[in-house]
Amino acid sequence: MSEVKLIVLNGGSSSGKSGIVRCLQAVLAEPWLAFGVDSFVDALPAAMQASDAGIDFGPDGEVVVGPVFRQLEAAWTNGIVAMARGGANIIVDDVFLGGASSQRRWQDALGNLEVLWVGVRCSAEVAAGRELARGDRSVGMAALQADVVHEGVKYDVEVDSTHAEAIDCARTIAQYVS
Amino acid sequence: MSEVKLIVLNGGSSSGKSGIVRCLQAVLAEPWLAFGVDSFVDALPAAMQASDAGIDFGPDGEVVVGPVFRQLEAAWTNGIVAMARGGANIIVDDVFLGGASSQRRWQDALGNLEVLWVGVRCSAEVAAGRELARGDRSVGMAALQADVVHEGVKYDVEVDSTHAEAIDCARTIAQYVS
Amino acid sequence: MSEVKLIVLNGGSSSGKSGIVRCLQAVLAEPWLAFGVDSFVDALPAAMQASDAGIDFGPDGEVVVGPVFRQLEAAWTNGIVAMARGGANIIVDDVFLGGASSQRRWQDALGNLEVLWVGVRCSAEVAAGRELARGDRSVGMAALQADVVHEGVKYDVEVDSTHAEAIDCARTIAQYVS
Amino acid sequence: MSEVKLIVLNGGSSSGKSGIVRCLQAVLAEPWLAFGVDSFVDALPAAMQASDAGIDFGPDGEVVVGPVFRQLEAAWTNGIVAMARGGANIIVDDVFLGGASSQRRWQDALGNLEVLWVGVRCSAEVAAGRELARGDRSVGMAALQADVVHEGVKYDVEVDSTHAEAIDCARTIAQYVS
Repeated sequence: MSEVKLIVLNGGSSSGKSGIVRCLQAVLAEPWLAFGVDSFVDALPAAMQASDAGIDFGPDGEVVVGPVFRQLEAAWTNGIVAMARGGANIIVDDVFLGGASSQRRWQDALGNLEVLWVGVRCSAEVAAGRELARGDRSVGMAALQADVVHEGVKYDVEVDSTHAEAIDCARTIAQYVS
Repeated sequence: MSEVKLIVLNGGSSSGKSGIVRCLQAVLAEPWLAFGVDSFVDALPAAMQASDAGIDFGPDGEVVVGPVFRQLEAAWTNGIVAMARGGANIIVDDVFLGGASSQRRWQDALGNLEVLWVGVRCSAEVAAGRELARGDRSVGMAALQADVVHEGVKYDVEVDSTHAEAIDCARTIAQYVS
Repeated sequence: MSEVKLIVLNGGSSSGKSGIVRCLQAVLAEPWLAFGVDSFVDALPAAMQASDAGIDFGPDGEVVVGPVFRQLEAAWTNGIVAMARGGANIIVDDVFLGGASSQRRWQDALGNLEVLWVGVRCSAEVAAGRELARGDRSVGMAALQADVVHEGVKYDVEVDSTHAEAIDCARTIAQYVS
Repeated sequence: MSEVKLIVLNGGSSSGKSGIVRCLQAVLAEPWLAFGVDSFVDALPAAMQASDAGIDFGPDGEVVVGPVFRQLEAAWTNGIVAMARGGANIIVDDVFLGGASSQRRWQDALGNLEVLWVGVRCSAEVAAGRELARGDRSVGMAALQADVVHEGVKYDVEVDSTHAEAIDCARTIAQYVS
């Protein structure tokens, strides 16, 4: 494999992506910058964080994103790709609410940039328990997203955090990088 | 067992106490207030959070607490017990750096209040991995504290988060409450 | 004045209480523990943080607290007072949604404990602007609470953060302590 | 002025940049994404957040950044510019530790992109007080950075938060945007 400059992790809410990303940053020899859908949402105006045009979190864990969100997200995606082209190693964690079509959105922005696609699986039941343990997410998101985000998505490597620790998932992924 | 008003969880850093506490709050029928050594440290003046008289976190994960910390902690402990006596159900998570002597500190404050002592175990290796995944703790604390905090401590129930989810640990503990 | 062991600050949302508390902790010679209504709400089960029995934040900034909240809050208040009786210096920041009746709730718990009552004023307009600048509060709370929380409340000292910095308010208050 | 796509705010630590940014997002008609040096540092591996090669915060508030930090920062800067070129409106808050040379770093990345340069001033004394009130920054940073970050920097508009609220500073800046 030629040199990977961008690692994209996809998985449902509370599947353990953030922990795996931090472990990856710790085990990889070079420095990698970590961004993700959470940091993108934090960058939005507060008013868009609960609106039809932006992103809305329903009472049962459903997430609806609007046209303005999609437009800004496209620009953000291009920017992340530009960082990788500019010489930084980048890890992104995302939630492919649209499955294969979400992956295509990234692919369209990538050009010939070398990417490692990583699927982070976690059983709906275990993810729901971890959602409760975190206490800072709408209850229901984890179960709703556990399977749908992987539909039709192609990966270079998949990890399953249901029974594996974040650090072990990170070590598995790291083998595909250097 | 007569009615438990106070649950005290003891375990090392990154053993999963906070997640278990949040799950306990979710599975127990009545409302329980959750406090812990972290919220106590947050209540200290910022200057005491890195001082010989207060609490100091060393570069390799060691934690040193001074005389003023101990004095304020004793008053805090009494206050927590008073909340339980005043009718609130309370869950406390603590790190018994002094093992049995830390437990005695609580026992001296309890009088005849009914307490459930819970030990939260996690192997040093797995706790160290989770410490890395959290990214907000001094690296080394988890391994240093994993065993020493349990030395000589007596429990009503013990859970081990090495291979069990927080929600499952919480369900085990909840059986001892009602 | 005999020795103050408890300082109670009352003011509306975004009136600057937390910043004044941190400055007080920095300028007072002895160590003071800081608690407040925010740390109390954090101690509640997540499910009670948006419920009729607990506390509910409406879309326009209104706050409604239910009977279970009040019951737990009473136990918490007694615990805070017990910490002060036990020898710790305590600063509490609260939002007296019920004005004079909220103050009476504290007074009933105090017995003969020496307290310094501090009013933290801030014009509704300026508080609303700071609420926007924080970005983490329901928009509208600041303006709704700015005046009502002071109705009928008696203070030993009042500060106004509309045009004064937190550190200056803290210095004013500190003169009443030692 | 042609259409501004990027607003760059420069000011010392605790000068009030973040609050002004959130107010700007609220008062500007279109949605603007907000990024900054803080979100960049959050993206770094934890190990680089206290290292000679990364960024190091000294005991008296001094900040030292190393060669790897600079390299990743350059890639990040290019990515932010790419987001603006890709159609997103972007607000960035930065701390020009190198004064004019830090501004040049941005200028080199901008090409012909239309930028609004904003200076956020705050007296060293007031910024130091606010640093104490925040409680989450190394004490001393605010005073050390208050003046040096503006040395030789050219602005389109300057605001001074010493006596002005964040929302008023934001309204002043907003006049230069549309």
